[in-house]
Amino acid sequence: MTFHTFPEEKLRSFTERVFLTMGCPADHASLAADVLLKSDLRGIDSHGVARLTGYVRLWEKKRINAQPEIKVVHETATTATVDGDGGLGLVVAPFAMKLAMEKAATYGSGWVAVKNSNHFGIAGYHALLAVEQDMIGISMTNASPLVAPTYSSERLLGTNPMCYAFPAGKYPPVIVDMATSAAANGKLEIAQRANESIPEGWVQDKNGQSSTDPNALKHGGSLLPLGSDKDHGSHKGYGLGATVDILSAVLSGANYGPWVPPFVAFLDPPTDPVGEGIGHFFGAMRVDGFRPAEDFKNHLDNWIERFKSSGTIDPEKKVVIPGEPEHAAEIDRKKNGIPLVDAVVKDLNELAMKLGIEGF
Amino acid sequence: MTFHTFPEEKLRSFTERVFLTMGCPADHASLAADVLLKSDLRGIDSHGVARLTGYVRLWEKKRINAQPEIKVVHETATTATVDGDGGLGLVVAPFAMKLAMEKAATYGSGWVAVKNSNHFGIAGYHALLAVEQDMIGISMTNASPLVAPTYSSERLLGTNPMCYAFPAGKYPPVIVDMATSAAANGKLEIAQRANESIPEGWVQDKNGQSSTDPNALKHGGSLLPLGSDKDHGSHKGYGLGATVDILSAVLSGANYGPWVPPFVAFLDPPTDPVGEGIGHFFGAMRVDGFRPAEDFKNHLDNWIERFKSSGTIDPEKKVVIPGEPEHAAEIDRKKNGIPLVDAVVKDLNELAMKLGIEGF
Repeated sequence: MTFHTFPEEKLRSFTERVFLTMGCPADHASLAADVLLKSDLRGIDSHGVARLTGYVRLWEKKRINAQPEIKVVHETATTATVDGDGGLGLVVAPFAMKLAMEKAATYGSGWVAVKNSNHFGIAGYHALLAVEQDMIGISMTNASPLVAPTYSSERLLGTNPMCYAFPAGKYPPVIVDMATSAAANGKLEIAQRANESIPEGWVQDKNGQSSTDPNALKHGGSLLPLGSDKDHGSHKGYGLGATVDILSAVLSGANYGPWVPPFVAFLDPPTDPVGEGIGHFFGAMRVDGFRPAEDFKNHLDNWIERFKSSGTIDPEKKVVIPGEPEHAAEIDRKKNGIPLVDAVVKDLNELAMKLGIEGF
Repeated sequence: MTFHTFPEEKLRSFTERVFLTMGCPADHASLAADVLLKSDLRGIDSHGVARLTGYVRLWEKKRINAQPEIKVVHETATTATVDGDGGLGLVVAPFAMKLAMEKAATYGSGWVAVKNSNHFGIAGYHALLAVEQDMIGISMTNASPLVAPTYSSERLLGTNPMCYAFPAGKYPPVIVDMATSAAANGKLEIAQRANESIPEGWVQDKNGQSSTDPNALKHGGSLLPLGSDKDHGSHKGYGLGATVDILSAVLSGANYGPWVPPFVAFLDPPTDPVGEGIGHFFGAMRVDGFRPAEDFKNHLDNWIERFKSSGTIDPEKKVVIPGEPEHAAEIDRKKNGIPLVDAVVKDLNELAMKLGIEGF
């Protein structure tokens, strides 16, 4: 695999041009680009500019509204439901998170469910907005069905990520940002390219049999929930994926379970929707709603130091604080640029040509 | 293994007598008994009256305060921190959950962190209090360190359960109530009694090596996080356990990580505490803070029906809705009584003799 490395600003301005060409207002284009770039900066390559063509294809199919009128459709002092009007999740999600944060600023906490949205990038982007204001940030989303619940032979849940983010003192924030499946699709793609088998416990084939074939998902199989099998707690991963689905979609009025519209434009959404678009859920809680923020941060620093200094099972390995590797990647890539694989560069240049804009 | 079956009321009145003998006020004794009985009724035998002697031993060591003055020590409109004054978690936790529900009734949501508490029974009891009022209930607690984070050779986290509970319409509530470890200690005990080996992925030995010995934990090993190993997502189980620890204890001012005092009275708490007692975290959100409760329940019923009717990988198996087996157990055991194993009956009768109260 060959990589080309680009300065952040080059990718950012290209990404903005793409969104502007789709007809997004300038502030939306800039925000959507910021969400994608944050993913690339943090080393989560699967959710950054590599997905840009995916968003464009959905827009071409009129499944993304470039000029959404994002509205609050239901509200109490600390809760709300937002209708994303079919807009980019990259724009709808920060709107909803900021609403949660405004409520938290006044009342201590704020919670916002979102319907009629699309893929929102990395969950961590939105939760981090809260952390910057000394709040605990929570974000989650449902997604196209790829995961089979324990004992199921059907894809009924997405990889449904959940993220909890906490502000620390002298250390980077603790950010738990995780899919609720055992492995992400991206890991299967790596094995496919390398023509290698995958560990048992990641997927089952279309008959529900355990499989080590990285192509099993493509051929009608399913991803498995975190825990992999019943003996190892797959009912817990299924329960977490269900929690994300219910909070994001049953609560907001979005599509849930197998009715969630697919991210890929070549698959049509179900013709019998149970809601509108895909759903998200966001929360913000002021740390000083519970104890002085400095006390919390000092103790979280102590927590981090204790876990980082843990004895390990292998002298080559360290206990990793959630969010720390992504923080390190962000510092590195801001300075040294963002590496993209050949295939992504080619894809983006083709996109530029199609849209009649400058490539790179 | 021999079981004796007792009517709910017999166990309830015995349990109340024990708490009264400890010096608990009548309303506390009745509430604490209700929490333990709910666990037995719901088939979670490990967390019911089988733990009664454990609570008494902690009280004998003056590690449980039978007459706590439970206080709110920090508060905003929708957040609070409660000091449990070293009381029974069985009493402190419902106090905190009810405070969260009062805040939710007024403002849409309520969130309460708790310090200076003890073991609170099953997480589901507390979350269900919210569900009865058409709220979404969330409850979690940290616990004695038994789990090694990914790559760690040390026990730094408890089995730290989290629970999310949702009211349905014609079906029982959906209740995701799960430890964040791959397997619970109770499963090891079953294998110990049967003298059987356990699956790989539940524990590591004291050197951090994977083990199938059900006694590995007793001999200085650790439980593994949900996901079992890095390849299968153990960093996610570790991240979830960390989330519970931070919300329950770093936020409230309780002990966290390896400083959490052990539940067993024969182990002394750490001599360098970083907080007070163990910590919990509770949340309540009014469903109608997001959409009309009937709409939510109708869609959750539809969700349940779709998942229950899923195709399965084995004609003998069904897709289980989280909380459904416990609901079925409760109906059965209310009618037919609660089975206790010989060893538990013997243990409770010895306790009765020691306390000078009527056994059964």
